Formats: sequence, C-alpha cells, structure tokens
Amino acid sequence: MKKQKLFVAKIGGNIIEDQEALDSFLKDFSKVEGAKILVHGGGKSATNLASKLNIKTEMIDGRRITSAENLDIVVMTYAGLLNKTIVSGLQKNNCNAIGLTGADANVILAKKREPKFIDYGYVGDVIKVNDNVINNFLQLGITPVFCAVTHDGDGQLFNTNADTIASEIASAMGNHFEVSLFYCFELKGVLENIEDKDSVIEHINLETYSKLRDTEVIADGMLPKLQNCFEALHKNVNKVHIANAEFIRDNNIKHTTLSL
Amino acid sequence: MKKQKLFVAKIGGNIIEDQEALDSFLKDFSKVEGAKILVHGGGKSATNLASKLNIKTEMIDGRRITSAENLDIVVMTYAGLLNKTIVSGLQKNNCNAIGLTGADANVILAKKREPKFIDYGYVGDVIKVNDNVINNFLQLGITPVFCAVTHDGDGQLFNTNADTIASEIASAMGNHFEVSLFYCFELKGVLENIEDKDSVIEHINLETYSKLRDTEVIADGMLPKLQNCFEALHKNVNKVHIANAEFIRDNNIKHTTLSL
Repeated sequence: MKKQKLFVAKIGGNIIEDQEALDSFLKDFSKVEGAKILVHGGGKSATNLASKLNIKTEMIDGRRITSAENLDIVVMTYAGLLNKTIVSGLQKNNCNAIGLTGADANVILAKKREPKFIDYGYVGDVIKVNDNVINNFLQLGITPVFCAVTHDGDGQLFNTNADTIASEIASAMGNHFEVSLFYCFELKGVLENIEDKDSVIEHINLETYSKLRDTEVIADGMLPKLQNCFEALHKNVNKVHIANAEFIRDNNIKHTTLSL
Repeated sequence: MKKQKLFVAKIGGNIIEDQEALDSFLKDFSKVEGAKILVHGGGKSATNLASKLNIKTEMIDGRRITSAENLDIVVMTYAGLLNKTIVSGLQKNNCNAIGLTGADANVILAKKREPKFIDYGYVGDVIKVNDNVINNFLQLGITPVFCAVTHDGDGQLFNTNADTIASEIASAMGNHFEVSLFYCFELKGVLENIEDKDSVIEHINLETYSKLRDTEVIADGMLPKLQNCFEALHKNVNKVHIANAEFIRDNNIKHTTLSL
C-alpha cells in the first residue's frame, strides 16, 4: 500500500526572531496540505533572556553549554514563549497545532550526553521517538509542533539540538509515511561560494558530499547540518531539502536537495 | 450506559512552589486509577520571574493585571517551566502526561475580558472547552496537564484563572464522564473558624452556602473559589472536594465536599 505523505519542516532563529517572517511562514505552513510537523529552535531568545537575568551563556562550536539555570531558561523560552506563540499563530491560520516537548506524551526519550572533552551539561541525545503516538495525533488531524526540549523518562528535561530532533522525528515517521524533510535556511541553500548567495548547489548525494567536504567547500556549521540530513536519508526519509522560507510557497525555487 | 469516572485535580502555589510537596503529589496523582486531568496555577513563580526582570506585578483582588510583558512571563512560567516540570515528573511516575495550554489542539477558546471598572489586560474568559479533543487524549491513555493559559483562536494568548479552567474543564467533560473535581488546598477544607484549622465544614450545599455567605463565615478569596465549584456542579460535575493534598491518598480524611 502506498504510504501517505508527511512534510516535516524545521525553522530556526532567522524566522522565529522576526515577527513578520514568522507570521508569513506560519501562514504558508498552514496551507501545506496533508500531514505535517513543525520543529523549531530559538537560541537567540534564550540567550536574550539569560542576558536579562544576568546568567552567562556559553557556546562551544555553536552548541549551548546547558547549566541547570540555562536549562530553566531554555524550557521557559522554547517550550513556553516560542512554542505557544507558534501554536497560537498556527491556530489563527486554522492549522490545529499542538506544542510538544519530548516529555509530552513521552514522544522523545533522550539520555544525558556523557562529558568527554566537553561537559555540555543538561544536553540530551535522542534515544527513541515514539512514532505511534505522533501518528495518533496526525490521524486526529493535529499538527505537532516540537521545540528543542527532550526528557529522560526519569524527571530530567534536556536541551536537544533542533536540527537533530527534526532529523530523528522525520526518520521515525518513515515507519508510517513517505517523509520529506525541509530545513528552512537563511540562504537559498548550500552554497558553492559563500560570497555568492546565488551559487546554490542544487543536488548533493553521498558521493558529491564527500568531495565537497574534502575540498572544504562545506565546512563549519554546515557539516553537522548535512550530517543530520544524511542520517535521515539513511533511515527512512525520502527527500531532504535545504532552502529559504519561500520554498514552502514555491517548491520550484532554486534550493538544495539531498539524496543518497 | 454508566459513564466512566474522571478525576480532575487542581493544584496551586502551595504544592507547585515546594519541590518535596510537588514530588509527593505527582507520585500520588500518578497512582489514581482511570481517566484523570491535572490543572495547575503558578502565580508565585511568575511574580518571582517578573521581579528578577524588573517588571512590575500588579494584583487586584488576587487577580494579576496582565500587561503584554506580564503575559510573556506568564507563558514562560506556566506553559514553560512549571508545566514541563510537572509533565516530566508525571512521566517519571509512569503517568503518560501531556502539557497543554488552551491553544494546543485548540482545547480552550477564550475571549479578552472587557475592561469595565478594571482593565485586567491580557486576561481571557473561557468561551468553549473542546471536550471531544480532550476525550480523544484520555481514550489514548494520555493524562492532560493544563496550565492557566488560553487563546482566542486569532493568535492571542491569555492569562486565565486556574480555578476557573479546572471548573470549566470538569463541566465540559461531564458530557463523557462521571466527573469529580478536587481543589487541592493548603488547609484541610473550608473552615468554620479561620483561627481553628480543624474546624472543617464537611458538607456545603446551595442552601448552607447562602447562609455561610450571609453570615460572612465565607468571604474574600474563598468566595470566587466556591462560585467556581457551584458553577461546575450546576453544569454536569458530580462532586467537588476542597481538601488538603493528602486527600488524593486517603479520600476519608476530613475535608469539604460540595453538592447542590
């Protein structure tokens, strides 16, 4: 039997922190037909709140070192203000959204990342996505909206990278759906030349990815993002797109598509 | 056909702000068999965060005047930190909880309270509880945990009194269940004499309520609480209990039961 389609989108700071961009995105996302899931980050808002509360924010390679105090800020910002702003914004557009952390209905179990060279604090790595529960919500016509918070099932919440959550959810939902995963990006896609915003690499597969990495065309923050994409492709996800927010309105704009 | 039983509990600051009391309550609540719902407040935490951020908190008759800034604090505290702490604490006790504001799955629609003598700001009065959606969750074995935040369906979140939310949810769920509503209280129940913590009035009905009000045995903050109770009883709720947290372990301890 042919599987139903599922669209998983991940948005980050460039959309969330800009009220106009967010309103426009939520309007477009609401119009996407069929089953869909939204995953959001929100690092800048957490950093702003921490700063107002005189709590230090420490980042290593773009990852937040999450002390107990910082975890409270992450939960207040991601699961509270941002998640509920997004959910109520989708409801306004007649999209029946529900906001979720990994603890809600036990949808994402994680375990604390072991300190090796770096102690990331309360950062969790995903162990299991409960795809059946998420599928129940989708079958009820409900659109899950995930923030970047997970739990260990033993009362501990964690900060978990939103790109990874999107990849893990998309992979797990491959058991039920034909899944496409969309990473909404500030640029048009992965660029050949960072100076030229139009130099989009339209297709990347495992072979070309390896070349782009070796020649350092792809480096820094783009590497873990693409790693997440290929992990998703290895585990059940059909297509991954890295594109500007406009992609949600027009799938034909220039962007990057990843395949194995 | 005899209706299934549903237990709705509301907890406030005396439980939420005390880690030991909260742990103990969540353990007991998790053991309650059958369908159940938890509603929580959290005013003190919101006031504390406002104070740390140098944002003024203004209360009139125990109700928070909710400016835009205060609404953000309410959403961060109630829907973020407190709700997710409670949800992960219930998961720890094998209770499959899901945290909800009124915006999530559109479960509670409200409208902004019109300014009359007092402008309460972003305070919402409940218009409709979507009992079918809540029933769907309960039938999936999921326990909804509501914080005191609602929405208007047009993108606006509201601060809404938690006692009222508990009463409105209990009433709406009467369409599906035989509902008992438990207001968890710092005292043993409604007292005959506020100086004597043992002077619990064990039964109050409409007739005795009217007398207690006329003779001012019941006054101040207790009046809106009892008003909520009787509204619930008028609309489908079978029993309302006002009792100490211990009641959840031992229904036979001295407490106040309300009936029509």
